[in-house]
Amino acid sequence: MNQIDSSIRASAPGTLMLLGEHAVLHGSRALVLAVDKRIRVELTPLDEPQLEIESALGQYRAPIDQRHADATFSFILAAFEHCYTAFAVEAGISPGTGVRLQVESDFSHLVGLGSSAAVTVATLAVLNRWLGQSPNSDQLFEQARAVMLRVQGRGSGADLAAAIEGGMVAYHQSGERQKLAPLPSIGLYYCGYKLKTPLVLERVAEAAEQLPLLYQHLYQLMAECAEQACEAAGQGDWTLLGRLMNYYQGLMDALGVNDAKLSQMIYQLRGDSLVQGAKISGSGLGDCVISLGQPQAVELPDRIPVQVASLGLRLD
Amino acid sequence: MNQIDSSIRASAPGTLMLLGEHAVLHGSRALVLAVDKRIRVELTPLDEPQLEIESALGQYRAPIDQRHADATFSFILAAFEHCYTAFAVEAGISPGTGVRLQVESDFSHLVGLGSSAAVTVATLAVLNRWLGQSPNSDQLFEQARAVMLRVQGRGSGADLAAAIEGGMVAYHQSGERQKLAPLPSIGLYYCGYKLKTPLVLERVAEAAEQLPLLYQHLYQLMAECAEQACEAAGQGDWTLLGRLMNYYQGLMDALGVNDAKLSQMIYQLRGDSLVQGAKISGSGLGDCVISLGQPQAVELPDRIPVQVASLGLRLD
Repeated sequence: MNQIDSSIRASAPGTLMLLGEHAVLHGSRALVLAVDKRIRVELTPLDEPQLEIESALGQYRAPIDQRHADATFSFILAAFEHCYTAFAVEAGISPGTGVRLQVESDFSHLVGLGSSAAVTVATLAVLNRWLGQSPNSDQLFEQARAVMLRVQGRGSGADLAAAIEGGMVAYHQSGERQKLAPLPSIGLYYCGYKLKTPLVLERVAEAAEQLPLLYQHLYQLMAECAEQACEAAGQGDWTLLGRLMNYYQGLMDALGVNDAKLSQMIYQLRGDSLVQGAKISGSGLGDCVISLGQPQAVELPDRIPVQVASLGLRLD
Repeated sequence: MNQIDSSIRASAPGTLMLLGEHAVLHGSRALVLAVDKRIRVELTPLDEPQLEIESALGQYRAPIDQRHADATFSFILAAFEHCYTAFAVEAGISPGTGVRLQVESDFSHLVGLGSSAAVTVATLAVLNRWLGQSPNSDQLFEQARAVMLRVQGRGSGADLAAAIEGGMVAYHQSGERQKLAPLPSIGLYYCGYKLKTPLVLERVAEAAEQLPLLYQHLYQLMAECAEQACEAAGQGDWTLLGRLMNYYQGLMDALGVNDAKLSQMIYQLRGDSLVQGAKISGSGLGDCVISLGQPQAVELPDRIPVQVASLGLRLD
């Protein structure tokens, strides 16, 4: 079959925040990690002018020139919009053809492993190849950021950077990113619920309005901590990085994004001798906590079995 | 009996920290409260050259000119030392006479209600009267601070200020203190264990050595928060004061003086609709948590039944 021969495959890793969430939106650097759970996207050219999307979350099918919105596939559709509009004519794509995008994921989109970032990056990669483009990683990052902003209006882009680069990345929202080695060993635990990041940001913004100076200075302190954490991470000084994680967690608590359950999990993890530090991963008020070092003696439910992995975006 | 006729009685309130602990040692203001549980000291002149101390904690008896150290009564003995050395000759105290000091307390010295401060202030008050001195509150505060420094080497003096003034006091370790109204309603809960303040300070100092700049800036932020809290407290804006307490608690967590149990109690208290804010009271790593507002729906064990009370040192 010609179509199978010409299919294009890409995959990108899930990502998670080690340190710097919230402050990264205010100009700080952040440490973000790519993990060994991935999202794969396969593009198959079709002989009919259709856009089809298939994943475990559902199906989408529309005439390629009459695409409709679909919340389930908002990132894929925005990525398609971005690339197809820009490059289809230039690539000489015949009006009578289309594509099928098949998505497979190693992890649920319900836990905070950056599924939107991974699927966006992998989708952009296969679309660029199909449309004859060979963007470098900076260009791909800018495409991905445009897609993210189109869908959700804001975001640091840190998860996009790690999905592209893999491993551990020191990221600034200017787009500047530095891949660091060695990679840390981590534990990741889901707390059982999750408030969507935009809602968390809204609550923080409300609190910040009431204490503007205290929040401004808090972000400055988070930025200082994140800067020291990037240095410690680059040197593989896990003891220092763990201390900085604990410190940052206190600042997250002051920010108002900690809660009883997250706090309980974090203190349990810190009680393990193999854990150098523990904190919320991500915007808070739910989702995951991350430990630097894998606990040995402490058993927490809902462990998400991930490890930091060096492999970023891969285009087959 | 002549001796009973000439006895002198004073009492001082227990105290607790509402906000500003740790930072007050670095030049910040603090909010400290006097409560309705008191320590009473009665001085009875004796016809023999003895110093006697009696309390629920034990007894002490020594020739007045051959006093020995006793850890149980270190603050009382230092207060005696301070006053007797300074004023006995001037007061014309006969070499053949002595005193008995009887101490009664409404609360255990094991919970963080500032028993040392209360007993120091009340003891100094009766000794001054016996020795013909009439110090004003500034002078008494300086005497009390000298006693405290003699016994434990350091301390902010905030609890001494509240034990003298009563009510809610905005305190600076320069000795500057401002009595505020109205008085807040509070809940106080003991966590079941307590690390002595000097040991807590030692641990914080160790952590600060490793992250000097982050700790310096953390203290600055605590000071800013405390300053806003003093203003909110003076205006009786409990909603704002509660928010500032929660914020300060996050900074205490970053400082490294929070733990699993304290955190759990604090988040339980914050879950009550009548609680405006909740945090550690005192140096942390044990002891008490304090809520602004008395919880209605949440039941925590080990409630210490205290209320803020306006009455400070009282000399009968």
